[in-house]
Amino acid sequence: MIIVMKPQAPESSVRQIVRIIEENGLEAHLSTGKQVTIIGVVGDKNKLTNKNLELMNDVDRIVPVTETYKQASRKFHPEDSIVKVGSHIIGPGTLTIMAGPCAVETEEQLLSIAHAVKKAGAQFVRGGAYKPRTSPYSFQGLEEDGLRYMAKAKEETGLNTICEVISADAINAAVKYVDMLQVGARNMQNFQLLREVGQSGKPVLLKRGLSATIDEWLNAAEYIIAEGNPNVVLCERGIRTFETATRNTLDLSAVPVIKSKSHLPIIVDPSHATGVRSYVGPLAKAAVACGADGLMIEVHNDPEHALSDGAQSLTFDQFDQLMAEMKDYIQLAGRKL
Amino acid sequence: MIIVMKPQAPESSVRQIVRIIEENGLEAHLSTGKQVTIIGVVGDKNKLTNKNLELMNDVDRIVPVTETYKQASRKFHPEDSIVKVGSHIIGPGTLTIMAGPCAVETEEQLLSIAHAVKKAGAQFVRGGAYKPRTSPYSFQGLEEDGLRYMAKAKEETGLNTICEVISADAINAAVKYVDMLQVGARNMQNFQLLREVGQSGKPVLLKRGLSATIDEWLNAAEYIIAEGNPNVVLCERGIRTFETATRNTLDLSAVPVIKSKSHLPIIVDPSHATGVRSYVGPLAKAAVACGADGLMIEVHNDPEHALSDGAQSLTFDQFDQLMAEMKDYIQLAGRKL
Amino acid sequence: MIIVMKPQAPESSVRQIVRIIEENGLEAHLSTGKQVTIIGVVGDKNKLTNKNLELMNDVDRIVPVTETYKQASRKFHPEDSIVKVGSHIIGPGTLTIMAGPCAVETEEQLLSIAHAVKKAGAQFVRGGAYKPRTSPYSFQGLEEDGLRYMAKAKEETGLNTICEVISADAINAAVKYVDMLQVGARNMQNFQLLREVGQSGKPVLLKRGLSATIDEWLNAAEYIIAEGNPNVVLCERGIRTFETATRNTLDLSAVPVIKSKSHLPIIVDPSHATGVRSYVGPLAKAAVACGADGLMIEVHNDPEHALSDGAQSLTFDQFDQLMAEMKDYIQLAGRKL
Amino acid sequence: MIIVMKPQAPESSVRQIVRIIEENGLEAHLSTGKQVTIIGVVGDKNKLTNKNLELMNDVDRIVPVTETYKQASRKFHPEDSIVKVGSHIIGPGTLTIMAGPCAVETEEQLLSIAHAVKKAGAQFVRGGAYKPRTSPYSFQGLEEDGLRYMAKAKEETGLNTICEVISADAINAAVKYVDMLQVGARNMQNFQLLREVGQSGKPVLLKRGLSATIDEWLNAAEYIIAEGNPNVVLCERGIRTFETATRNTLDLSAVPVIKSKSHLPIIVDPSHATGVRSYVGPLAKAAVACGADGLMIEVHNDPEHALSDGAQSLTFDQFDQLMAEMKDYIQLAGRKL
Repeated sequence: MIIVMKPQAPESSVRQIVRIIEENGLEAHLSTGKQVTIIGVVGDKNKLTNKNLELMNDVDRIVPVTETYKQASRKFHPEDSIVKVGSHIIGPGTLTIMAGPCAVETEEQLLSIAHAVKKAGAQFVRGGAYKPRTSPYSFQGLEEDGLRYMAKAKEETGLNTICEVISADAINAAVKYVDMLQVGARNMQNFQLLREVGQSGKPVLLKRGLSATIDEWLNAAEYIIAEGNPNVVLCERGIRTFETATRNTLDLSAVPVIKSKSHLPIIVDPSHATGVRSYVGPLAKAAVACGADGLMIEVHNDPEHALSDGAQSLTFDQFDQLMAEMKDYIQLAGRKL
Repeated sequence: MIIVMKPQAPESSVRQIVRIIEENGLEAHLSTGKQVTIIGVVGDKNKLTNKNLELMNDVDRIVPVTETYKQASRKFHPEDSIVKVGSHIIGPGTLTIMAGPCAVETEEQLLSIAHAVKKAGAQFVRGGAYKPRTSPYSFQGLEEDGLRYMAKAKEETGLNTICEVISADAINAAVKYVDMLQVGARNMQNFQLLREVGQSGKPVLLKRGLSATIDEWLNAAEYIIAEGNPNVVLCERGIRTFETATRNTLDLSAVPVIKSKSHLPIIVDPSHATGVRSYVGPLAKAAVACGADGLMIEVHNDPEHALSDGAQSLTFDQFDQLMAEMKDYIQLAGRKL
Repeated sequence: MIIVMKPQAPESSVRQIVRIIEENGLEAHLSTGKQVTIIGVVGDKNKLTNKNLELMNDVDRIVPVTETYKQASRKFHPEDSIVKVGSHIIGPGTLTIMAGPCAVETEEQLLSIAHAVKKAGAQFVRGGAYKPRTSPYSFQGLEEDGLRYMAKAKEETGLNTICEVISADAINAAVKYVDMLQVGARNMQNFQLLREVGQSGKPVLLKRGLSATIDEWLNAAEYIIAEGNPNVVLCERGIRTFETATRNTLDLSAVPVIKSKSHLPIIVDPSHATGVRSYVGPLAKAAVACGADGLMIEVHNDPEHALSDGAQSLTFDQFDQLMAEMKDYIQLAGRKL
Repeated sequence: MIIVMKPQAPESSVRQIVRIIEENGLEAHLSTGKQVTIIGVVGDKNKLTNKNLELMNDVDRIVPVTETYKQASRKFHPEDSIVKVGSHIIGPGTLTIMAGPCAVETEEQLLSIAHAVKKAGAQFVRGGAYKPRTSPYSFQGLEEDGLRYMAKAKEETGLNTICEVISADAINAAVKYVDMLQVGARNMQNFQLLREVGQSGKPVLLKRGLSATIDEWLNAAEYIIAEGNPNVVLCERGIRTFETATRNTLDLSAVPVIKSKSHLPIIVDPSHATGVRSYVGPLAKAAVACGADGLMIEVHNDPEHALSDGAQSLTFDQFDQLMAEMKDYIQLAGRKL
């Protein structure tokens, strides 16, 4: 922690702060410049939690030096993590494809999609049984029925399954049916939910919040890990900006940034990020090229009649073709499906 | 709903869309320009939910004409709403001041603050018993003990009380102790929580999400009202932008925008918005001047030792002075404390 | 300047950096923590310009301690500045109203508006003769003819005049006709133009860029002052965010922030910020209440036929009424028209 | 153009608007819904420029249907454009690499870098002779001397040359020495400069503004083309968001969006976008994978002593290695260096 004093702060103010630091068992190191004095603080900064040094006389500001997340940080866990879902490994060397409809609509729909994405090479089928929707009057999902269809899809195809959860009740239901839980963008800072998926024991896919910084995202992952569940995969799905040509702005630089700051795997969802079907393919390839560990892609048997997000869903043929086109990119990136 | 066709869309594509619209019991009105044809759709658009017309051949885009929220809209409820909390009225003619610490820390702390803000003219004491914090290692609140101290503060001072809730458990506890529930910015689209506060029967203060549009905010209010609870007050508390001189960017234009689009009362929280104590006063006055129905202001007996957000909290003296300075502004705005 | 080393940086890396700092005539102060070493650098940091210490081995990041602007900073000029335009004073104690059309359209239009805003109490007539427009096919202004009408309006009404300039040619013309030059939001970082208005000798109104931080804005002011022209007034006119209910998001917290960081006067333009006529009045009052030194407001004789920005312009009657309503707010703020 | 009326707008208001539309020689098409009437307007909307229909009684809002740019639009120019610089072709089938220092510092520096990037496969050397800098006290470039060194670099290596211009004077100098002019992000809406580079006859690289929408960016290109200069190449270089882990947020979705809306070539600058050397490589590959026509990459002989942007510059070895790694990606994308 660094304390920057105001210009021409009197020595008495500096001495007072040094005294508080030392009384609390930390060390203070002064750098006295012509205009400004700065105080380097060495020791456990939690001891200063309730001191609010930024309110002391003549303090200009406090600059934090270390991140608050620990278990999610590469600094304390230098090797890449892998996350196992059944026998499937998410992480370096593999490229994980999660594909399926935005929302589970019927058993037939889900099974037909599961078969199709399996054939094209996906290892997971995704599908929403609990849909967080902006309006209370929009379709909110089939809930437990949807989960049951997911289990059926796994049984028939052998695919791993992933479903978003939005409450403790949804978690309790989902753990019985699916292999991996997803925390959606709107719930990235629903800390209660983070603790609960942490306690569930299931691997968790944690989507980035609509306007979450990378630092907040890794702190959200820390909530899950702190409950004893290290099996967290991050998912970049676009952030909110002023641009309206795409639904969100896919932040692919998040991939190398996360690789630098954290050891957790990261996948990319170009479907929700862009909201436009024809942009999904180019950005899927880009995600692989910049080091993503996987992709989440919306596929629908009949996008023109999807109950949710049809405009960004690929048809079976389009998904087949994209998977074929991506093969060389996946290989170039040193990964295997 | 308006459908904008691509330039030079063939007549056959236009006809196909008109057919679908009419088959579903709606009317289609064509405007055929030199470059572009547009189709006005008249009727209940929910009948087209699963048609995804934006995927039809030669459709450029769909422009929605009506908002999805109804009960929160001024269009369907032209008079200003008032929200009663006990005998206190929030809405036109009054100016509601909610003041208190960010977090409840001890019984003594809360009581001393409650007495101070009561004396200065506040009608509510606020205080967090459940604190959503970015890091799992930060202070998370006293939970039910904090709520008990709130009840005690009400008993001693007669002030109304308000507390943030972050889960079904917190709601179940809070309804026993406090007068009004708060949904925080991070939970503005925690739809499960919105439904639960809607069912609680208590008046609700709904903070705007960090990057929520006004349209999303009113849809979140709609979730609460749709559960049969019309007692919703909105709270503008700053949005996330690129600017770093303040913690968030207080969007005071939200006040007249909400007044134009909705009938719900709106209050302003300049403390969380700016994160800097010396900016609170000027923006509190500005909020009153532009038509806000109230203010939420952080006050602490000892900001230098607050466990949370000390830097933005006013001391008792500062709050006293601000209340004195605001009196004329409140009167000018045609309101009463 | 503070250098934060990576965790567990070897002593040799720290020593190398200290050596470079000292070889360049500065001092290095070490704070060696358990995890991280930080190095406080004391002395003229310009001596390190081409050292790029952030690229040295084991450096995590560099934290600047002082701002790059000096003459615009309150730290080096503690008293509020005033800017004189003719005999009119912009700054503490006064409230300056600049009113007029977005674009000068005809001599008759401008004169009729000038008379009307004069009568209502404005001290400046504003009007664009050079209009920066998103599309090359939109109306671009009357150029020198527009300036001539401005001079005529001054002659007839005695009002001060202000006009936006967008190039060296426009400056050369404008200095002959008007009292104050305006640099628009899109040109806030057109550094060539900033130097040229600096050299013009005329007082300058510097609008904040669409996505400029306050730090960048004050650095832009520094460009003007560094040319020997201290007569700079800042103008907050809304920043670009994700919100679409208003054209931009008016950042009124910029008023107290500027007052804290700088000595320059600041005025507010609620017309361009919101783009909606009915939001102008509430935000104008709010700007006065939070300490602005003035307002820029669009007024038009016939908004329904304005060539530019009619939707946000007030009619004469609306402006009269707003001026009447603002009188008490101006007095409360301790200012005079 | 579509006019959306307010709910329950009286027929008289609708009739008045229809009358104005028809009086101006356009057609009005009504869609009268239960709640809302919409009016489709067919014809040349410029005839309504000064009508400001949004101010008419009972109008809710106006929705534009067509873009304002024409010559930059794919709708009116369906085939991909190519831009020739000397004998080099920028556009489909090629992958153009522009590499070099942020700022030209000395003749020796520039020549050594030019030889290195040529050897590694670049076709352009870039280098700033006029540097727009936030602070007036930062290094501002060597100006005409810098341009002379660029000409020397071309003479020695045969590389094409590109330089940013910031004023009419800079353009007049640059056209004598370099092959292509660059308009920087801060000047994207310096419309005077856009017109001047349009008149220069040189090919132009137009960087996206820090917070420019894609629509504004294409309108800026339209300014250049409207002066008779169709040789415009776009350059995505990151937009301003709330995220601070990278200097800007590289918006790679802009590549497929531009390909969809425009026929102009687009290249990507990962160096300025991220500001961090180790993120450049992954994002360069991603740009190629999603369809970019080229890359602009900062390379420096001695990044640790660069006068500007050293932290994001690659060394010769790093650039060599990146070019080697990109070869397969370039081939996969169906392009040639």
